[in-house]
Amino acid sequence: MRIIGIDPGTNKMGYGVIDSKGNSVKMIVMGYIDLSKLPDHYAKLAHIFERVTAIVTEYQPEEMALEAPFYGENVQSMLKLGRAQGVAMAAGLARGIDVFEYAPRKIKLAITGSGSASKEQVASMLKSIMNIKEMPKNLDASDGLAAALCHHFRITNPLMSSSKSSWNDFISKNPGKIIK
Amino acid sequence: MRIIGIDPGTNKMGYGVIDSKGNSVKMIVMGYIDLSKLPDHYAKLAHIFERVTAIVTEYQPEEMALEAPFYGENVQSMLKLGRAQGVAMAAGLARGIDVFEYAPRKIKLAITGSGSASKEQVASMLKSIMNIKEMPKNLDASDGLAAALCHHFRITNPLMSSSKSSWNDFISKNPGKIIK
Repeated sequence: MRIIGIDPGTNKMGYGVIDSKGNSVKMIVMGYIDLSKLPDHYAKLAHIFERVTAIVTEYQPEEMALEAPFYGENVQSMLKLGRAQGVAMAAGLARGIDVFEYAPRKIKLAITGSGSASKEQVASMLKSIMNIKEMPKNLDASDGLAAALCHHFRITNPLMSSSKSSWNDFISKNPGKIIK
Repeated sequence: MRIIGIDPGTNKMGYGVIDSKGNSVKMIVMGYIDLSKLPDHYAKLAHIFERVTAIVTEYQPEEMALEAPFYGENVQSMLKLGRAQGVAMAAGLARGIDVFEYAPRKIKLAITGSGSASKEQVASMLKSIMNIKEMPKNLDASDGLAAALCHHFRITNPLMSSSKSSWNDFISKNPGKIIK
């Protein structure tokens, strides 16, 4: 199963592609796109769509994992973030790729065991888990890769919480399996 | 100039296509897509992308006008609305179509002269301005058409406020032209 992970923001976009096979996982590519110098909001959205489409065309992933914060400072920033997410999703949906989303905290938790891990801690675990020789200096590049790896963990461990099934759901549906 | 107008929401999407030539304007098509019965948020986003892509392919508009509220009840609803807008924009951006956006109040103001006009008043003006024989019973269908007509007015009257230039901008840049 080939997975693309994306962290779409309004100023930067991180992406990573991995191959997930059983419990093993291999990095194919990771990268980072700087949107901060583009002239306006539309140019940023167009660039996100173009780049995600190009990456999807080149690497042919079967599923997409999005890092998607659910809360923000205000409605204005959430509208803009929603647009960036929507454009990235559309590039996947246009190719029939299933889209999954994970809150930043869940991604950190899945990779490091702590929902409040630092970028450095996440990058260090990514490096170790996937035998990456050298991580890029700009750690924004690792955010997309982290989302992809989080989705790999969810596939291989169905109990892990995701956008479609959560640990709380599991508990409420399986009260007999919980040892109190 | 062929213009597509879209009102993308999370439960419904109105669209309209018009031909704008000088001061004259002609309706080509108007319609409404019910998203409320689709199983989840992703299915809705995928459907918006598919339908907008299909409409753009069929009618080949050169510009897209979006009805885009800038304020909402809470960050959650704005994130979802932003995604719906982003997906609709992506369908246009993917074909190189320029995207413009107008707040609901500005669309009503441009068409009826009142920013607080009712759906019925807007529909009545659309019918009159474009010589439409009969408006659809479901007035949600007219929201996209109204956005397209608003963009036509902006093209033919550059003083009209839009997402990229506003009356306030004009006043601040041209103080000598204002009679106080």
